[in-house]
Amino acid sequence: MHIDQATTAELEKALAQLEQAHQQYIDQHMQLDLTRGKPSTAQLNLSNPMLGILGRSVHDDKGIDLRNYGVLDGIPEAKKLFGALLDISVAEASSRVFVGGNSSLSLMHYVLSFANYRGLRAEDTSWQAQAKQSGSAIKILCPCPGYDRHFSLCTEFGLEMIPVALTGTGPNMDQEEALVKADANIKGIWCVPRFSNPTGEVYSDDTVKRLAQLSQMAGKNFYVLWDNAYAVHSIDKGAAKLANIDSLASSLGTSDSIIQFGSTSKITFAGAGIGYMTSSETNIKGFSKHFGMASIGSDKLNQMRHVRFLQDRQQVEKHMAKHACIIAPKFKAVASSLAKNIADTGMGEWSDPQGGYFVSFNTRPGLAKTVVALAAEAGVKLTPAGATFPEGKDPQDANIRIAPTYPELDDVENAMAVFVNCVQLASIRQKLKAG
Amino acid sequence: MHIDQATTAELEKALAQLEQAHQQYIDQHMQLDLTRGKPSTAQLNLSNPMLGILGRSVHDDKGIDLRNYGVLDGIPEAKKLFGALLDISVAEASSRVFVGGNSSLSLMHYVLSFANYRGLRAEDTSWQAQAKQSGSAIKILCPCPGYDRHFSLCTEFGLEMIPVALTGTGPNMDQEEALVKADANIKGIWCVPRFSNPTGEVYSDDTVKRLAQLSQMAGKNFYVLWDNAYAVHSIDKGAAKLANIDSLASSLGTSDSIIQFGSTSKITFAGAGIGYMTSSETNIKGFSKHFGMASIGSDKLNQMRHVRFLQDRQQVEKHMAKHACIIAPKFKAVASSLAKNIADTGMGEWSDPQGGYFVSFNTRPGLAKTVVALAAEAGVKLTPAGATFPEGKDPQDANIRIAPTYPELDDVENAMAVFVNCVQLASIRQKLKAG
Repeated sequence: MHIDQATTAELEKALAQLEQAHQQYIDQHMQLDLTRGKPSTAQLNLSNPMLGILGRSVHDDKGIDLRNYGVLDGIPEAKKLFGALLDISVAEASSRVFVGGNSSLSLMHYVLSFANYRGLRAEDTSWQAQAKQSGSAIKILCPCPGYDRHFSLCTEFGLEMIPVALTGTGPNMDQEEALVKADANIKGIWCVPRFSNPTGEVYSDDTVKRLAQLSQMAGKNFYVLWDNAYAVHSIDKGAAKLANIDSLASSLGTSDSIIQFGSTSKITFAGAGIGYMTSSETNIKGFSKHFGMASIGSDKLNQMRHVRFLQDRQQVEKHMAKHACIIAPKFKAVASSLAKNIADTGMGEWSDPQGGYFVSFNTRPGLAKTVVALAAEAGVKLTPAGATFPEGKDPQDANIRIAPTYPELDDVENAMAVFVNCVQLASIRQKLKAG
Repeated sequence: MHIDQATTAELEKALAQLEQAHQQYIDQHMQLDLTRGKPSTAQLNLSNPMLGILGRSVHDDKGIDLRNYGVLDGIPEAKKLFGALLDISVAEASSRVFVGGNSSLSLMHYVLSFANYRGLRAEDTSWQAQAKQSGSAIKILCPCPGYDRHFSLCTEFGLEMIPVALTGTGPNMDQEEALVKADANIKGIWCVPRFSNPTGEVYSDDTVKRLAQLSQMAGKNFYVLWDNAYAVHSIDKGAAKLANIDSLASSLGTSDSIIQFGSTSKITFAGAGIGYMTSSETNIKGFSKHFGMASIGSDKLNQMRHVRFLQDRQQVEKHMAKHACIIAPKFKAVASSLAKNIADTGMGEWSDPQGGYFVSFNTRPGLAKTVVALAAEAGVKLTPAGATFPEGKDPQDANIRIAPTYPELDDVENAMAVFVNCVQLASIRQKLKAG
């Protein structure tokens, strides 16, 4: 039944069944949660051997005591490993990779803080000083729907957000280029270039190339904030590859404008992993100088646990294939439920990601909040509607992020049964009300 | 021989011997290092059992999966343990203790960053906004000699430093009180209240009480930055105790002005320990809100390693007694060498710490840089002269920080032999030149 082709009688009959089902779900008092992109227990268990991997060995290959102070920018072995995950060669890893503590979010926070208040490198004017000079706010381009924590970082630092469109192969580059050309106070763009959060899209080669080039049209100290959080997080073996922005930027001479982030939060332990970043040598030097005011160095023992456990890119890929085996059925359950219940009904559209942690679902305009509220009363927690847009404001009130990795497969299936019922219920109620 | 009572002939004779000895040291090409307050290998070894202590147990008492995301402000067990080290009761630990990652320096950096740019709590005006309103810079009181990294944090955040005197029992409180009364833009004071870095002094009860009270005379958002880095780091069993600033502030109603910091850097592993802080409940709430933009939570596995290994305050004290056994002979070697070679010569004065990591030595005015340079050419690295003062400027050019914990005992003895020779050499050269 397509909602726009059904008769009022058909809709009313369907509605009665949906209301009844919804009440039954409410009566079951379920407690299901599809809110956050968290690895499941089975995924975390994959990395348990890492816990004891150091044994009594507390030195690195060059004899650095991993327990003591020092090595501000990360141990060489970790730079090499994590550099490889961000397409940085061994030769360049020592000067161009920074390995930190347990979170790439912290590194993003530091980068924005340093750029905003101090200037990333010693010779840079800070963004705030530029704002003062120009009499207008600093702005960041935010492809939408996107990652809520990128947006809250902008809010924290008083950076204005400009929502821009995603196309299915990354941001609309015609729009981005026009914007940065027109306003020198646009100082960055957030990107989750592979398996974007939440749409799952992979930026096309052409988009990556145009992003590598974007700083040439922009004002000073413009950064492509390349949150490559899902670089090795394919679900399908044939998942689309991401073009290497680092080598593109290098050949264009724009390396100073590219800051890549990554972490092992969804490779090993979400709360006890390693965050890392890469940029030009001068940027990493500038960053390290500021970071050196805040730290004498990150936890080198945990860096070495990761080096011993993950070894190299090839081993990481083998390890990630095990993750894929665990989460693929959950993504399949989401896709099946949506295909069976929403396809060809006109009640929603959704992504079919080949990797990452999310399915992005769009209701008919104006229904996302309603669906999330209905699901909540039936015991299924969803990410708040709007969270995927700056300041929590989805202009269409349509986007819902579904995160199926953490619950057990049964629970994903149960939660999806509730979800599709809520979508149908909200859609038909709206349609009947509109008459 | 006292330098001010010796004849020129006596001084010249002594100088010839000292020059000869100095040349012999140079010829030995030693490489000794008394620069940083680092635990030695033997000290680090004390905590090796912590490495494997988790086994396969990855949950806390309440079933929290320590490997996954979450628990922004630290696991309850860690709050209780570290709260106890900062005199916070179990009942108050959950709302008033924040447990972070591997460094208290990072927590200090965040506190200053939030207070400076945003206001620590939602209702606070930021320091920078207050500076703008008042047309004058924000200032921090810096008892001297002090810890170089406190000073570089001020520089990083554009905070003016006002050097103030230490008396042997903490800062000169008459001076501090007069200063804060006269200038509402003074927003904080750095304190290392027990075994101060580098003087080793322990703040007296009266000083602690007056510091707990200081905010009542100061402008808004004034903080006593209480870096209790050596809270449990006695060398002598009879070492002076520190008054409990938390309960004093609580009875005075000034808890909002006290921010205590601590870490296990010199309890377990310097580079892989745990940093923590405590303040009023509203401050911790405000801090956590900002911190939540930078992190989804610190490494809970490492927090739990510490909980399992250190257990409670009593166990920590037993553990610290083992540290004392290792480092006491090194401090004794420093004290013996100074007593034997410098006492009653008029060539220097020094501290006799009962805990902490440093001996503070004062040359005759104008000689610290010379002594450090002489020692360097004879193969002994010392902390740069001036480092214990804001912007590296010791107005007397007299203070040298000696850090004897890291080298082996033999090396401490050898380094001290070089050091006292350099002190004598520089002193007599200066005296003869002055005529």
